[in-house]
Amino acid sequence: MTEKNDIPGPTRRRLVSLLSLLDDYSGKRITSLEIGAAAGCSASLVRRDLWISGYRKGVSNGYDADELAVWLRSVLGLASGGGEKKCCIVGLGRLGAALLDRNIFEGSPFCVSAGFDSNVNRVEILRSAFPLYPAGNIDSVVRREGIEFAVLAVSDRDAQPMADRLVKAGIRGIVNMTRAVISVPENVRLESCSPVLSLMNMLA
Amino acid sequence: MTEKNDIPGPTRRRLVSLLSLLDDYSGKRITSLEIGAAAGCSASLVRRDLWISGYRKGVSNGYDADELAVWLRSVLGLASGGGEKKCCIVGLGRLGAALLDRNIFEGSPFCVSAGFDSNVNRVEILRSAFPLYPAGNIDSVVRREGIEFAVLAVSDRDAQPMADRLVKAGIRGIVNMTRAVISVPENVRLESCSPVLSLMNMLA
Repeated sequence: MTEKNDIPGPTRRRLVSLLSLLDDYSGKRITSLEIGAAAGCSASLVRRDLWISGYRKGVSNGYDADELAVWLRSVLGLASGGGEKKCCIVGLGRLGAALLDRNIFEGSPFCVSAGFDSNVNRVEILRSAFPLYPAGNIDSVVRREGIEFAVLAVSDRDAQPMADRLVKAGIRGIVNMTRAVISVPENVRLESCSPVLSLMNMLA
Repeated sequence: MTEKNDIPGPTRRRLVSLLSLLDDYSGKRITSLEIGAAAGCSASLVRRDLWISGYRKGVSNGYDADELAVWLRSVLGLASGGGEKKCCIVGLGRLGAALLDRNIFEGSPFCVSAGFDSNVNRVEILRSAFPLYPAGNIDSVVRREGIEFAVLAVSDRDAQPMADRLVKAGIRGIVNMTRAVISVPENVRLESCSPVLSLMNMLA
């Protein structure tokens, strides 16, 4: 079996996206042509990606969607057997507060375990299905709850100091929704997810 | 001058991110070491990226931050001289509604010109600095206002049909904030910007 770390980044991203498509095909077969049409890439790229993942059960009438989904979850380290991964939302302005919604994470391997904001009033006023804390509690709550991932939705100016605090608390991956460039130690994963930077990427 | 289309994707993305860092250094010089430290990559990668962009004015004591920012905006096609690019927010649930905030787009080459939701009640109730319309009006509003870009924040299930509608209306770039895999014609740009997919990418 191919180890997940052997899969190059771009292939890995396409395979992660493919998982949500496979949900729609549950109980059916899906061809590389159908996958390619939905994902906006060629059927041969789809077949190459799946080959790289180590999957060898493609036949001329397509892939068994359920079987392929199980394979990909396993090879990508997303199998639900591993239990839910805890994450927190840091910064509860409009964008961060919008993520305090169970539906957004439903069906993913993630659950939100806490929200943080440096404004104590906001923490008290906001309605949420998850416990909210002042940012000063990040260190203790992250350690106590075993939270591994954070979605950073603070102001650009607060992005780096808050990332530093999360790293210090033991977080091992940060999704950066701000426009700020932030740096984290090598052993911490970092993904940029800013709507404005995404728009700018389309212009460039 | 290097044409923007000659710049490979990963370099382009790093250069776009670099722009917001340069704002903080306005009036100062910045070294490739400082850029690398902030961006979490090596100084030599920074120098290589800037070389690829065609910039030749780096000296041993670093880059003039303002001059470099002007260069990058120009080479990346983000110069403000081109006027503001109009975009719209499609889907005004919690996530989409959170983007109806001038601050989010401030200082970027984008302005929000409209919001759309298939729920007419939401369109009437939501407070917004921008005009909101029922989704049925996408075609006429996009054409009338000359809106070129869309941020897609609908439910996963509605993502593809809504993208089809936007493409038909003449949109030339879509930021997909849903988890759904969507496909667009080759001449339409597509960027994925889903917090959940970003989290999953970190696991994989």
